[in-house]
Amino acid sequence: MSIGYYTPTKVVFGAGAENQTAEMLREFGASRVLIHFGSGSVKRTGLLDRVEKNLSDAGIEYVELGGVVPNPRVSLVRKGIELVGSEGIDFILAVGGGSVLDSAKAIGYGAYGGGDVWDFYCGKRKVEGTVPVGAILTLAATGSEMSDSSVITNDETDPVYKRGVSTDFGRVKFSILDPELTYSVSAYQTSCGAVDIMMHTLERYFHQGDSLDFTDELSFTLLREVIKWAPVALDDPQSYEARANIMWCGTLSHNGLMATGNPNKGDWACHQIEHELSAEHDVAHGAGLAAVWGSWARYVLDVDPERFVKLGVGVFGESDPVKTIGKFEEFFRSIGMPTDIKGLGLDFGEAECRTAARGVTFQDARTIGNFKVLDTEDIYRIYMMASGK
Amino acid sequence: MSIGYYTPTKVVFGAGAENQTAEMLREFGASRVLIHFGSGSVKRTGLLDRVEKNLSDAGIEYVELGGVVPNPRVSLVRKGIELVGSEGIDFILAVGGGSVLDSAKAIGYGAYGGGDVWDFYCGKRKVEGTVPVGAILTLAATGSEMSDSSVITNDETDPVYKRGVSTDFGRVKFSILDPELTYSVSAYQTSCGAVDIMMHTLERYFHQGDSLDFTDELSFTLLREVIKWAPVALDDPQSYEARANIMWCGTLSHNGLMATGNPNKGDWACHQIEHELSAEHDVAHGAGLAAVWGSWARYVLDVDPERFVKLGVGVFGESDPVKTIGKFEEFFRSIGMPTDIKGLGLDFGEAECRTAARGVTFQDARTIGNFKVLDTEDIYRIYMMASGK
Repeated sequence: MSIGYYTPTKVVFGAGAENQTAEMLREFGASRVLIHFGSGSVKRTGLLDRVEKNLSDAGIEYVELGGVVPNPRVSLVRKGIELVGSEGIDFILAVGGGSVLDSAKAIGYGAYGGGDVWDFYCGKRKVEGTVPVGAILTLAATGSEMSDSSVITNDETDPVYKRGVSTDFGRVKFSILDPELTYSVSAYQTSCGAVDIMMHTLERYFHQGDSLDFTDELSFTLLREVIKWAPVALDDPQSYEARANIMWCGTLSHNGLMATGNPNKGDWACHQIEHELSAEHDVAHGAGLAAVWGSWARYVLDVDPERFVKLGVGVFGESDPVKTIGKFEEFFRSIGMPTDIKGLGLDFGEAECRTAARGVTFQDARTIGNFKVLDTEDIYRIYMMASGK
Repeated sequence: MSIGYYTPTKVVFGAGAENQTAEMLREFGASRVLIHFGSGSVKRTGLLDRVEKNLSDAGIEYVELGGVVPNPRVSLVRKGIELVGSEGIDFILAVGGGSVLDSAKAIGYGAYGGGDVWDFYCGKRKVEGTVPVGAILTLAATGSEMSDSSVITNDETDPVYKRGVSTDFGRVKFSILDPELTYSVSAYQTSCGAVDIMMHTLERYFHQGDSLDFTDELSFTLLREVIKWAPVALDDPQSYEARANIMWCGTLSHNGLMATGNPNKGDWACHQIEHELSAEHDVAHGAGLAAVWGSWARYVLDVDPERFVKLGVGVFGESDPVKTIGKFEEFFRSIGMPTDIKGLGLDFGEAECRTAARGVTFQDARTIGNFKVLDTEDIYRIYMMASGK
């Protein structure tokens, strides 16, 4: 058996799509909504006001919960769960980027399932339902708007933990994708988003087992599009064309399309290697991925060089796998992303690499990866390579 | 606003996927199932037996209704609707190709909505619900397994009419895609399917208004894949790789992905020009499309030659639009498809072309097309070109 494709999320795409929010909420039976958002940019841009007016005009009641930060915190999730209960909320509307969406999903799981919401993230309990969630996306990056995943950081422990859960209950009911809402995204966040988008496809591309050729070719197409349009968005932040293409790449990169027909969901080692950095150091996720990918790629290349050859030919017309890795790094640098850990502003020596590697494997309790299975020692070496040691 | 993307169908993909039929039926609440199929090949191959055993083992009751023919008939749909009522059916399982799926969708609409089911197809009433439908696909072609459309032929009138209806209620609950189930598809039907798949993307590609570049590039990727794998399937009908890639191309070509972000759903004139041929003459749909596409393309080329240039470069690396049209026709012929009406075994002169053109426009009551709007006279000329006159 190979994996299938299940994306029940209704996507509303285009300029002004957020004017259909109330219509979507009605379609999915919402009557009292928790509007969940971040640290204020949706207020500054006037988006929150417009959305709230859209709801009010349609007679839909709502309660606000802002304050989501990058690497969203379980402490705020707990507040949201309380609010859902005390306010009689029957639908959660996330307005923001991936962190806001992931936080909203966590609130949904916790409010539906009761008990300690962190249980779902550390694997103690399975998600068995959710309060329905919808999204208005303001940042192209995580793909959370159509993916089955949610990543939360537990800020109540020392060290803090960053953990993800994947479940079809995480597929939001609707996602409103208006590329214009990303015009105000900074150059740095635009680049971080571009890397994250590319990595969701690259992580799926690298896996053991036969690949569906069509899925590979769709992956190359997506990667080429990000490489084409990210620089345009940096040059002209208000290019609808650039923002629209990047936004849709972000969604398709993580909704499962790029693994359909393959025997498994990919490698995901880079995400786990990066999560350890961003959980501990509040590194931007996309920058962290750019910083470690090249080292990971060089470390695992020998497992199946032909897979790298196909990638290089498909994306760059480059048949030398080592050069292909270099070309990805060159692209990352061209959009202002670091390609080593030092570029993240971190000074990692042997001790830091060892600690981080043990963090990734939960102190040797697990391995990661699929293309090449990695243990603590492997991960340590990758961190060392990424630190220039 | 541009169009979005909504594909709630759960796809189970891979060899042996049909063994999950009962599991899927349970997931979607089925207890008493109408198994709908065609003219016997699913019996000959043993598929029907295996599926029925799968249901029986799970304690799911079922009733059979076979006999669907290509260009499925409303008369059989009416029988199905009666059965759903008299047998207390709560789920329809289509086992077959696009005709079986479209017939099952029609039964679903009619059984849910009451009255005359043909009303939904001739535009007298809107579909407002359906008895749920699931599918086990045995032919890669129509994309009905994830599309919102259903096409039925009214065999109770003279002349007969072939009409389609598109509605999100036509998105089936689940689709089981096992490429091995298409091993037994004949060379001719494999080629007809390849053309149909390509046309669902080409029809969407040609439209007025700005296109999302990513969607264009996905379209070219899909077309290249069909061109790559159809000949392999003809050479080696039991190539899992070829059958799997073609099958997934068929699904993605018609689920809406290839129009997302564009202002409209495409042109569809060729489908309408072809439907007139297959309704009256029982021409295979894919062969009919291959027979008229080149003439349509030459007729409309001047509207926007640049659109043809982009297509040619993306699919063939060919920047001359006239040569691009020729290359599509060359490919069609290479897989045994006709590129004119004579190749369908029909002898069309002026009178036949005139009658058919008037049939397409319901006797001058409508125009068709979006890339170029076509009236009866335009369609007449296209039929004449396709007849070598």
